[in-house]
Amino acid sequence: MIRVGIIGSTGYAGQELVRLLLNHPEAEIVWYGSRSYVDQKFASVFGNMFQIVEDVCKDDNMEALQNEVDVIFTATPQGFCASIITEEVLSKVKVIDLSADFRIKDVSVYEEWYKIEHKSPQFIGEAVYGLCEINREEIKKARLVANPGCYTTCSILSLYPAVKEGLVDPHSIIIDAKSGTSGAGRGAKVNNLFCEVNENIKAYGVATHRHTPEIEEQLGYACNEKITLSFTPHLVPMNRGILVTAYANLKKAVSFEEVKAVYDRYYEKEQFVRVLDDSTPVETRWVEGSNYVDISFKIDPRTNRLIVMGALDNIVKGAAGQAVQNMNLLFGLPEHTGLDLVPLFP
Amino acid sequence: MIRVGIIGSTGYAGQELVRLLLNHPEAEIVWYGSRSYVDQKFASVFGNMFQIVEDVCKDDNMEALQNEVDVIFTATPQGFCASIITEEVLSKVKVIDLSADFRIKDVSVYEEWYKIEHKSPQFIGEAVYGLCEINREEIKKARLVANPGCYTTCSILSLYPAVKEGLVDPHSIIIDAKSGTSGAGRGAKVNNLFCEVNENIKAYGVATHRHTPEIEEQLGYACNEKITLSFTPHLVPMNRGILVTAYANLKKAVSFEEVKAVYDRYYEKEQFVRVLDDSTPVETRWVEGSNYVDISFKIDPRTNRLIVMGALDNIVKGAAGQAVQNMNLLFGLPEHTGLDLVPLFP
Amino acid sequence: MIRVGIIGSTGYAGQELVRLLLNHPEAEIVWYGSRSYVDQKFASVFGNMFQIVEDVCKDDNMEALQNEVDVIFTATPQGFCASIITEEVLSKVKVIDLSADFRIKDVSVYEEWYKIEHKSPQFIGEAVYGLCEINREEIKKARLVANPGCYTTCSILSLYPAVKEGLVDPHSIIIDAKSGTSGAGRGAKVNNLFCEVNENIKAYGVATHRHTPEIEEQLGYACNEKITLSFTPHLVPMNRGILVTAYANLKKAVSFEEVKAVYDRYYEKEQFVRVLDDSTPVETRWVEGSNYVDISFKIDPRTNRLIVMGALDNIVKGAAGQAVQNMNLLFGLPEHTGLDLVPLFP
Amino acid sequence: MIRVGIIGSTGYAGQELVRLLLNHPEAEIVWYGSRSYVDQKFASVFGNMFQIVEDVCKDDNMEALQNEVDVIFTATPQGFCASIITEEVLSKVKVIDLSADFRIKDVSVYEEWYKIEHKSPQFIGEAVYGLCEINREEIKKARLVANPGCYTTCSILSLYPAVKEGLVDPHSIIIDAKSGTSGAGRGAKVNNLFCEVNENIKAYGVATHRHTPEIEEQLGYACNEKITLSFTPHLVPMNRGILVTAYANLKKAVSFEEVKAVYDRYYEKEQFVRVLDDSTPVETRWVEGSNYVDISFKIDPRTNRLIVMGALDNIVKGAAGQAVQNMNLLFGLPEHTGLDLVPLFP
Repeated sequence: MIRVGIIGSTGYAGQELVRLLLNHPEAEIVWYGSRSYVDQKFASVFGNMFQIVEDVCKDDNMEALQNEVDVIFTATPQGFCASIITEEVLSKVKVIDLSADFRIKDVSVYEEWYKIEHKSPQFIGEAVYGLCEINREEIKKARLVANPGCYTTCSILSLYPAVKEGLVDPHSIIIDAKSGTSGAGRGAKVNNLFCEVNENIKAYGVATHRHTPEIEEQLGYACNEKITLSFTPHLVPMNRGILVTAYANLKKAVSFEEVKAVYDRYYEKEQFVRVLDDSTPVETRWVEGSNYVDISFKIDPRTNRLIVMGALDNIVKGAAGQAVQNMNLLFGLPEHTGLDLVPLFP
Repeated sequence: MIRVGIIGSTGYAGQELVRLLLNHPEAEIVWYGSRSYVDQKFASVFGNMFQIVEDVCKDDNMEALQNEVDVIFTATPQGFCASIITEEVLSKVKVIDLSADFRIKDVSVYEEWYKIEHKSPQFIGEAVYGLCEINREEIKKARLVANPGCYTTCSILSLYPAVKEGLVDPHSIIIDAKSGTSGAGRGAKVNNLFCEVNENIKAYGVATHRHTPEIEEQLGYACNEKITLSFTPHLVPMNRGILVTAYANLKKAVSFEEVKAVYDRYYEKEQFVRVLDDSTPVETRWVEGSNYVDISFKIDPRTNRLIVMGALDNIVKGAAGQAVQNMNLLFGLPEHTGLDLVPLFP
Repeated sequence: MIRVGIIGSTGYAGQELVRLLLNHPEAEIVWYGSRSYVDQKFASVFGNMFQIVEDVCKDDNMEALQNEVDVIFTATPQGFCASIITEEVLSKVKVIDLSADFRIKDVSVYEEWYKIEHKSPQFIGEAVYGLCEINREEIKKARLVANPGCYTTCSILSLYPAVKEGLVDPHSIIIDAKSGTSGAGRGAKVNNLFCEVNENIKAYGVATHRHTPEIEEQLGYACNEKITLSFTPHLVPMNRGILVTAYANLKKAVSFEEVKAVYDRYYEKEQFVRVLDDSTPVETRWVEGSNYVDISFKIDPRTNRLIVMGALDNIVKGAAGQAVQNMNLLFGLPEHTGLDLVPLFP
Repeated sequence: MIRVGIIGSTGYAGQELVRLLLNHPEAEIVWYGSRSYVDQKFASVFGNMFQIVEDVCKDDNMEALQNEVDVIFTATPQGFCASIITEEVLSKVKVIDLSADFRIKDVSVYEEWYKIEHKSPQFIGEAVYGLCEINREEIKKARLVANPGCYTTCSILSLYPAVKEGLVDPHSIIIDAKSGTSGAGRGAKVNNLFCEVNENIKAYGVATHRHTPEIEEQLGYACNEKITLSFTPHLVPMNRGILVTAYANLKKAVSFEEVKAVYDRYYEKEQFVRVLDDSTPVETRWVEGSNYVDISFKIDPRTNRLIVMGALDNIVKGAAGQAVQNMNLLFGLPEHTGLDLVPLFP
């Protein structure tokens, strides 16, 4: 059994890690970390866990933690993971960081977009970007995995084959993304109150959202170019789900079948990426509660653009599910272990 | 492997049966019945099942069906199951009926409340009311199980110990219930459109809802009296969940601990009934997607009333989950097989 | 023009007062009070008011305020209004208090339920309970109006005729109420976050909610008896609306027409109380954004109970609308001035 | 008083016309047309109108209608208005068509996108496109007004100044739009059921939505070029509201102030267009229930793009409100008559 410690277990991503790992046959959570609820029963914070989890939340204590577990998930605010990572920690345990601390290779880009100083840039180099479908082999050998952002996972997986194969002009990419409200976290803020979010839609972080450089970096690797793109997230009055609608200029006339063949080449064998058979738009409801990314696309000959749509559950494939997928890779387990989740509808 | 046939697999309850049985280690769905979608792929109706279910929907054909399966679930409108049940069918397969056809022992009560003629009253006698926590031993021996209604399951389990042990006057019972909209089914009706349900709450079927006699009959068995009670359902703008708030006059002064002890006597060993430790009100979000019923209660000395609150997921414990629980009993499996579902939040 | 000051203008009720008074032909808001947003533009807090309200929020300053306005609305937490009321204030301006400070005549009951000391009990006697349909004539002569609670308004108006005319046993009353989330206020609390409220229903304050003694006092006046009753509020995932489902034992057999005649006697001439023509359940969506209370009822001969349903918009008739109605009475205007609002649907 | 007839008064747009016209001081509805509810009370269909509207719904009868009213609103499916317009009708009454029948000048474009034959192409020429802010003077002289589509109004008003003034390359325009569900109409379809729409977001009509050529035509007039653009609508789980996020390549480097000055030149004197003071994203909640269009924009120097955001209430400025605004112009009334609506929040 893999002994698991979660720092930040009482956020939405942390709590979802708990849900997933409870059904994981090879893992056991032995450390429920939560600064906000130290010494309180985890199930008193999340009533769904009543009679399922009996544990009490613990304060940060890296000394103790690194000796009691095999893997640490940090589902924590930006900057935390960078502040606790040391050679000693990495020599004892695997670390899967759900924050952005180790996602961006250029520390100056990180510091510019996140407005914080990076506390341990010396580990950025060895950190592996944990997008399993792209970096599978490197993840297997990693000590420190940078679990991708939710918007990022959806955006990259939606566009990767088209960019990598040169179907589209990468400099023309516009990503219009929509997210359920759990992505905003569990902090007590007026802006996230029910009455403020319900019956409303708005953009936010226009041209400044922190997932932008992460998407640009990864898609840049795909086309071997430095690229900039437009990324606009929106807040949708629903709990879970991210939908990405991405636009890019086609480099030449292509048929649906040609593009489909390209996507199939990349994803046909991927359990968690489902490319639809036709141009039916993907919907977030069809992936809720599961680790799937659904992708479909439309070729628009009028404008000569490719419109790619991607949908995932931001807390699963966009956070906790992908983190478990990374854990499976790190520990040599079948990648889908504990992740055969049928989406819940309605 | 238990071979399963589902008639009515494209309703919300039918589709949830599919979700649950896909994760059931001892069952295999071999018949996806759906009059509305004959010859269409099941996954074309429910996109969540894409690449998971490859089957095509079939029309009703009892001849074929009874020879190909071990158990039939009928997730169908009232009257359907009664119209297809025969001695031959029951001699070949087990039947779990999710409609009301075999729930009420007095056929005249059924016909009065449901306004339809019962097509096979001769099987009402042997049908077992499939509330596992109450009728476990009889279910094990049954051929025909009448799976309880969603409101009924929540109402009965919430009140059963108090009524059975004579804590309350059963003639004083008032049940005010609230349900998510999936309980209204998947039929195309103006009243169930998003814009008609959203931002609204209303009662319906006041003093006339069909689950009333079912609750009265079962609680009547508990107190060995014929009782009438008030039952008022309400429609809530959410997908899943039933909340019951039940009021009853206490027969004598009791403490929280005394009542708790009574409830624990009935439910402490029940995996799917969770009685909270204190009077914290139960919430539907804590059971969503799972087979749990959560129960808590408050003693109000000012009015001398017991207020019991129950919450369940109407499609799981209120329909498909309980049906699987019944299947497990019928086939001698551990009752929780395939039902160890951690509630999904948020 | 009536010069209006609002203390607490940036809560949901305060903001609704602004919306209503902007369309009031005889009133003008000259003071936007808000401790939380002092010196900020009101329209920067509520974007709907952009280019409509140019004013800046002001801190409490009773000295200045009492000299600049004709009427003060206090849409403030419990205890605030009692802390600022003086003989001098009341000699200069009318005060309409949207909090509970002056609703309950017995100060010990207030202090017991609200757990705070009352700072100016000497004014409780003269304060008039501002339920216009019941206390119209007294309100006209008042200096200090205690604007009723949202649950209270809906509960009392729904039951008043039946209790007053002795149709039901007042000791048997059970009120099961459901409220939209705006009733919980605009404070930043985890419990009121979108993801915590959405897809959920729960009871709260069971047998202890503070509106209980207010309902008991007013209905007690109606039947000239001291009564206790059960009151259970629930939180519903919608912005606005309160639905009350009230149960009471009938004292004798009555017909629908008899009860309807009683209700019509009280409400036929009331513009803001609409008694439906039959037993169709009322719905909150039909009153949204308006000052109406809709009422309908069902006689259940099986249980010998009367079930009365009431619906209102908690921020309008349950708060700001009723406050404006009270203002109209205080200043000798037609009661409906500025309140001819057609409910907004969907 | 203007005597008004509404054909299609029981759809969402028709019902909103009723709400708005009930508060219009110079108009009176004398004909509530509705094929689906002939001879039924209007208030039995929309409970909000109980005790407000006593009229009964009437079947189509153009003979009678054209003699009883001064203006007809057709809030009907595509093709209907074209089928009833005659010279006789237009000689007697003004017609404001809320469908698309007379919006597109090139009948072949209409027939290609709408897949129906146009029944009276001879009137397309004289029909005026009823976007008041652009075509004010022509509307005043019209007999037949083609009321713009909801997406179209929001898209055009958001982009018009930038396109007209040559700030952006019109061939680079991408419009990603999001709509509340009332835009899908009141027809009983499974796809629009609460449980299908709630907790979901999806694109639809990708690269094929019928509002596309309407936007292209109008923006083409602005830049004096034939243009094609990408338009992608999405369905959002909320009742009302449209948000447009539009992307276009800047032709040269511009500052916020420069672009703001351009927008102010067009809209500063427009009561119903509010251009925000800074780049704060607009939100649909701030315009709900009102006739406002809110617009804000962001200049992204990284990608050299202008991102313009527009928000309106699809049933008001996107349908019924704009239709009333047109009526006011047609009858020489102040344009805002009956439309001084403060947005309802929350």
